[in-house]
Amino acid sequence: MTAGLPSVERAIQLFVRFPGIGRKSAQRMIHHLLRRERGEVEQLLQALQALADRVGHCAICHNLAEAEQCWICSDTRREAHLLCIVEEPMDLLSIERAGLFRGRYHVLGGRLNPLGGVGPEQLNLATLESRLRAGQTTELIIATNPTVEGEATAHYVNQMAAPLVSRVTRLAYGMPMGGELEYLDESTVYQALAGRRNF
Amino acid sequence: MTAGLPSVERAIQLFVRFPGIGRKSAQRMIHHLLRRERGEVEQLLQALQALADRVGHCAICHNLAEAEQCWICSDTRREAHLLCIVEEPMDLLSIERAGLFRGRYHVLGGRLNPLGGVGPEQLNLATLESRLRAGQTTELIIATNPTVEGEATAHYVNQMAAPLVSRVTRLAYGMPMGGELEYLDESTVYQALAGRRNF
Repeated sequence: MTAGLPSVERAIQLFVRFPGIGRKSAQRMIHHLLRRERGEVEQLLQALQALADRVGHCAICHNLAEAEQCWICSDTRREAHLLCIVEEPMDLLSIERAGLFRGRYHVLGGRLNPLGGVGPEQLNLATLESRLRAGQTTELIIATNPTVEGEATAHYVNQMAAPLVSRVTRLAYGMPMGGELEYLDESTVYQALAGRRNF
Repeated sequence: MTAGLPSVERAIQLFVRFPGIGRKSAQRMIHHLLRRERGEVEQLLQALQALADRVGHCAICHNLAEAEQCWICSDTRREAHLLCIVEEPMDLLSIERAGLFRGRYHVLGGRLNPLGGVGPEQLNLATLESRLRAGQTTELIIATNPTVEGEATAHYVNQMAAPLVSRVTRLAYGMPMGGELEYLDESTVYQALAGRRNF
């Protein structure tokens, strides 16, 4: 229907690739851009160009960074003996929001997914091994997601790390705060029961 | 938390302006962009640049167009005596998808909203008047949205058009197909009742 406008169709196709954006939403977003004064597209172009030009990965932990080191690695107040493994920079932000953890991170850049072409070589494991061999880390916290692939990744990291660090831990699984038993999936309830603690 | 990455924060702020995109979604979209090979950002940049460079408005009906006339105005098979008024190009696409209408359109480019600074001068009404004065139109179908502002716009257009065209109509209001009485708002049920037709 929009066949007459290849540039609109092309933009829609690229927006559909975003997580959680269907064709309808993408179409609405593009039309929103075109509705505004043309300045809206210009601002977006500049912002995306800045992303492409300035944002890279931290040389130490692979978090997003605009400099050689990210804001966590360059913060000398962060404890060096605690190292938390996450899949993606977004996961790191979630842990930071919780406000408890004051150690450092290592961002894997994904999770093992052999069928999807992601093997150990595709993850940031070599730099992790070097960091562990440097010997500062006393506890490695594996905070991959509780999915099949996240679990597989956790096991792989644990096997690699166990000889190099005295303690390897992982996040607790259980009821989410505010969650209701009635609406939780069985495996969450299973984990909450299996991991029960004294009152 | 992302204070260390102003370019990420800037991009998030621009994405939040899209309809239906909250901060969390925007953050996820930007991180998605940064996760891919850098080519993803490049493709998006090119697509948006093409939008800015190529997409303008049809000289006749103000629909989106990459040429002087849109794909509808340049289609000689479309009936010239039927003219349908819509607020935005997206609305035109909805009517096209329905597949019934074979006439032409006039896109107002918004709806009257005096408090928001949108008066009659901000809408494409002058060109509408010229088209009506040209005398080809025998029926003007007002397809603004059934909202307070859309209704006000419909009334304004009707007043302007009535002396110039023999018949002014508007879309029927009533039950949406697949809708259930139980879940519909009162005003829709009211319109469905008021507009009831013989069986």
